[in-house]
Amino acid sequence: MTIVAEPKHDQNNTGVQQRTTDYQPRRSFRTWLIGRPLATADAGHQTIGKVVGLAVFASDALSSTAYATQEILAILAVGGVLAFTFAFPIAIAIVALLAVVTISYEQTIHAYPGGGGAYIVSRDNLGELPAQVAGAALLTDYILTVSVSISSGVAQLASAFPALDAWRVAIAVGLVGFVMLVNLRGVKESGLTFAVPTYLFLVMIFITVGAGFFRLLTGQLGTVVNPPSMQHLGEVSAIGLFLILHAFSSGTTALTGIEAISNGITAFNKPASKNAGITLIWMSLILGTLFLGITFLAVHIGAVPSEEETVISQLVRTALGGRNVFYLMTLGATTLILIMAANTAFADFPRLSALQAKDGFLPRQLTYRGSRLVFSRGIVVLAVFASLLIIVFQASVTALIPLYAIGVFLSFTLSQSGMARRWWKIGHLKPGQEVKESGSVLVADAGWKWKMVLNGFGAVCTVIVMFIFAITKFHDGAWIILVVVPVLVFIFFRIHQHYKELARSLSLDHYGAPPAIRRHRVIVPISGVHRGTLAALDYARSLSADVTAVHISIDDVESERLRAKWERWGDGVRLVILDSPYRMLLEPLLAYVEHIAAVRQPNEIITLVVPQFVPKHAWTNLLHTQTAVLLRLALLFRRGIVVTDVPYQTE
Amino acid sequence: MTIVAEPKHDQNNTGVQQRTTDYQPRRSFRTWLIGRPLATADAGHQTIGKVVGLAVFASDALSSTAYATQEILAILAVGGVLAFTFAFPIAIAIVALLAVVTISYEQTIHAYPGGGGAYIVSRDNLGELPAQVAGAALLTDYILTVSVSISSGVAQLASAFPALDAWRVAIAVGLVGFVMLVNLRGVKESGLTFAVPTYLFLVMIFITVGAGFFRLLTGQLGTVVNPPSMQHLGEVSAIGLFLILHAFSSGTTALTGIEAISNGITAFNKPASKNAGITLIWMSLILGTLFLGITFLAVHIGAVPSEEETVISQLVRTALGGRNVFYLMTLGATTLILIMAANTAFADFPRLSALQAKDGFLPRQLTYRGSRLVFSRGIVVLAVFASLLIIVFQASVTALIPLYAIGVFLSFTLSQSGMARRWWKIGHLKPGQEVKESGSVLVADAGWKWKMVLNGFGAVCTVIVMFIFAITKFHDGAWIILVVVPVLVFIFFRIHQHYKELARSLSLDHYGAPPAIRRHRVIVPISGVHRGTLAALDYARSLSADVTAVHISIDDVESERLRAKWERWGDGVRLVILDSPYRMLLEPLLAYVEHIAAVRQPNEIITLVVPQFVPKHAWTNLLHTQTAVLLRLALLFRRGIVVTDVPYQTE
Repeated sequence: MTIVAEPKHDQNNTGVQQRTTDYQPRRSFRTWLIGRPLATADAGHQTIGKVVGLAVFASDALSSTAYATQEILAILAVGGVLAFTFAFPIAIAIVALLAVVTISYEQTIHAYPGGGGAYIVSRDNLGELPAQVAGAALLTDYILTVSVSISSGVAQLASAFPALDAWRVAIAVGLVGFVMLVNLRGVKESGLTFAVPTYLFLVMIFITVGAGFFRLLTGQLGTVVNPPSMQHLGEVSAIGLFLILHAFSSGTTALTGIEAISNGITAFNKPASKNAGITLIWMSLILGTLFLGITFLAVHIGAVPSEEETVISQLVRTALGGRNVFYLMTLGATTLILIMAANTAFADFPRLSALQAKDGFLPRQLTYRGSRLVFSRGIVVLAVFASLLIIVFQASVTALIPLYAIGVFLSFTLSQSGMARRWWKIGHLKPGQEVKESGSVLVADAGWKWKMVLNGFGAVCTVIVMFIFAITKFHDGAWIILVVVPVLVFIFFRIHQHYKELARSLSLDHYGAPPAIRRHRVIVPISGVHRGTLAALDYARSLSADVTAVHISIDDVESERLRAKWERWGDGVRLVILDSPYRMLLEPLLAYVEHIAAVRQPNEIITLVVPQFVPKHAWTNLLHTQTAVLLRLALLFRRGIVVTDVPYQTE
Repeated sequence: MTIVAEPKHDQNNTGVQQRTTDYQPRRSFRTWLIGRPLATADAGHQTIGKVVGLAVFASDALSSTAYATQEILAILAVGGVLAFTFAFPIAIAIVALLAVVTISYEQTIHAYPGGGGAYIVSRDNLGELPAQVAGAALLTDYILTVSVSISSGVAQLASAFPALDAWRVAIAVGLVGFVMLVNLRGVKESGLTFAVPTYLFLVMIFITVGAGFFRLLTGQLGTVVNPPSMQHLGEVSAIGLFLILHAFSSGTTALTGIEAISNGITAFNKPASKNAGITLIWMSLILGTLFLGITFLAVHIGAVPSEEETVISQLVRTALGGRNVFYLMTLGATTLILIMAANTAFADFPRLSALQAKDGFLPRQLTYRGSRLVFSRGIVVLAVFASLLIIVFQASVTALIPLYAIGVFLSFTLSQSGMARRWWKIGHLKPGQEVKESGSVLVADAGWKWKMVLNGFGAVCTVIVMFIFAITKFHDGAWIILVVVPVLVFIFFRIHQHYKELARSLSLDHYGAPPAIRRHRVIVPISGVHRGTLAALDYARSLSADVTAVHISIDDVESERLRAKWERWGDGVRLVILDSPYRMLLEPLLAYVEHIAAVRQPNEIITLVVPQFVPKHAWTNLLHTQTAVLLRLALLFRRGIVVTDVPYQTE
């Protein structure tokens, strides 16, 4: 290790030196696990085209086709098999909603070329509270994306290999850990890693749907052979509006992940907004087509919702003629894209939490980039919470779904309301005027009214869906999110308040410096006279001429021995022996310090110099009372008292 | 709070002052629980007579009659009901053993008038290793005394009130907690508290045995009505030597607690040794009589060993004619004396552990007398371990017994071997010579040979019993003790080695003081320029003229801002900005400190002054990186580097 002394500029002669450390981090288990540390200068930025962009950002949205149909059927099952005929009309309604949301987000992408997630749009246009609500909704949502996608991926695996059924939770938690490690290494959002699974999935699932329709038209499509036993959610009930809205709510999970592109516009080749917008539209078209096709075919072949075998598995083996190699490839690709979807959340959660932390609503530590230039702490936090959810809900997609889409629709609503408000602000600009906001630039736009109506309509649609979801799924678990989000928002504001107060009380504005320290009174608490004591005493005397050693006496005989030793070794330093009738150590010492503190001058400071021997083995600390630690805790809140421990290393 | 400045003696003019603090400890929840703190001067010492002495020290020994017979029967049950006829002969053998041990201990009491537990006798006569073995055996034994006695007490309760059966573990742990609290308050080893339950037990149990024999002689004693279902321990086997020795081993638990008086001789009225010796003999006579009587009657009435109903319960209701008020009183008294037995261990364990801690084989903290003048820490440790045992073994006396008596017999053996060795040393004294040892004084004694033979015979008997116990009960759980005792002894010696090494390396013998500190180099790590930084800077400048502020730069923009602020507020102090390409905070700073440390003079010391703001609410510490704590840990083992944090209290 060398410090290259290289005083870059000291032109003002203020004694400021700048040096570079070429400190090379040591190799360790951590290096092996996540790779060698990257220097800040290594951070690159490469952009991607539409084809790769679709692969990178679409996995979350497209993967929801793997479970959305099944969740609709799972609700309708309560109304009996007849109710399944409602599944396709419900899917059409959801695709209509998808169209509205897509158009809204297309506008957002052009308005926020630097990235326009719901948090930024809400913050710039609606204010702090809505922004934090969006943040809380999105963070919980990202956690759920991981839990739901991984659980669904494991369900596909277990459909193909029923022997894995008993190990669902363990496999799911293991996969979360794997995705966490990959992200701690820092994946570049590009390349084959993403393209291969996404396009493999698309090819396989289009083959499946295509084969299904071909067989349907040629009259060869039968029904599911050996269907699994049907899953029952609650009591059998009549088919009514509530049931249909309930099923509709479950299906809206198909829309989750649609906002991913709006967060990552800067990753696209120039013109970034245009490319991102086109990718978004392509993604929605593919998503809508697949979702409609899968739902239509699933109903037609009599697929039944089941925790044993997924609807996708039933559809694939019916359309492709049994559990053959194509079946295995399709289920494999489905599992992969679901893991990719979880991976998307691992990109978004740390980025959003760093953004909120930078704004002072989350612990600042979340803004710190780890050794691999990623927000490591956010990644770990996400993995921990997602794993907990998987364990608590036993990796059941159906159990997790009621917690899911509500946060998505809350953030959709806030994002689109924010956009509507933004158009309104643009409409009230003076001609030619430009207003720079933290996330975007407002420029006059003739079509602002229409665009405002469009975003406003989107907001109305999504808020309605949100309420439908909250009401129909309240008892299934949606209430948890209705509790968690406000609690999170409260915590965010408490954190913000702390940072604001701290900044104010540390601020140098209007700061009149207190009188400089002119005199030290040094107190050295001693339990005996030994080398450690003498080292502390030497240190104390180097601080000040006013040194007092204090001994708390519990045992007269021992005090007498100490006094004798002090006469020989104390070198004339004043020793105060305090009798402690109740055998307490800390309390009489604190009382003595308070007594001295009460009579000092404003420019005096009291320093406690505590001898502390450092044993060779850490466990031996248990054999000693940690006086220095206790003293520091006890005196932390007293002004003008500093506790120093002087370590004495024993051989 | 006042400090009474009262310099008692400073005749040598060495600057030593002695003051008394009249610090009155505050009232708290703790005060309510265990009473107000007692001053050291309050410690009194009162002595007791033989009648009270019997009550105080005999509860442990006498209470074992409540389970010893049952444990013999529980083993014999394996050989069928016929095997029960061996119970009485076994009891006779055990009483013979009791006689031998009693005579041995009677000699010990006279030899060690200051208290002669196995630990002290072994230490003075056999050396460190046997003493620590005795210590380990006794400490585990005291823990087991609590677990076994309380579990047996609860079993008596559950026999009388079968509804309590499901709550055994909870009741037992609750009772341990109660006895712990009573002991933390500090019970005086005297008075009615002890006398009432012990004598009530003796009266009731003698009535039971008397009534039993009366009915037997008058031909009215039947067999147990509705006996509980018999407890089976392992496979039915033939009656052989192993089975009989196995049953004998279980019965030897009747001897536990016999050594209690030898620990507490100083509590007796003068002549203490004589009174204690007479009490011991009385105790053994009562114990032997009761044990023989109970065993004889239990076999005669056909009592069966069972976890549902104790043998005592079966005997009492058969002898006293059903579950009447006498039955309830007797079982109540039995429960009480068992709790008293646990209480004895609460007196012995803390005393022994304090003794071992004073010798440096256990953490020194165990020698500290708590606010009520008792060794509070030892009391809490005992309660915790005893509760754990009760939970692990589900409060089953039969499951705990195999762990029990082996430690007792190990300590008997060591104690008596030590005594034999002591007689041998006395025999080799010159006429009229006196040798003072730490625990007793050796005085020539003409009868030393006979006394040596007596103690030696005792040692041989107990060592044989110990081996019988270890072999026959190895699989039942005795192996645990055979593992735990050596492990404990190893730990004791490791602790001792640490204290010895520490004392040597702190010793002032042959100590050449290193050069006094002449110069401070002060390093102030700063993350920003604010009031906290300036407070630390002011403190640093009061220590030395050589102050360097160090900033670790992760972000160029922020460093530039800091530099500008420093030019205004830094007051000319040198600032070093260290670029950290890997965004690490601690490592470059440590490298810089090492760099400075490498070039310093021997009489220079490096002090790191770390600004630390103290937030109002402790939870907000989570929102900040604790640099000072990490620095202190990282630099603990570096010589000549002191870390001081200067707290800055925010409003």
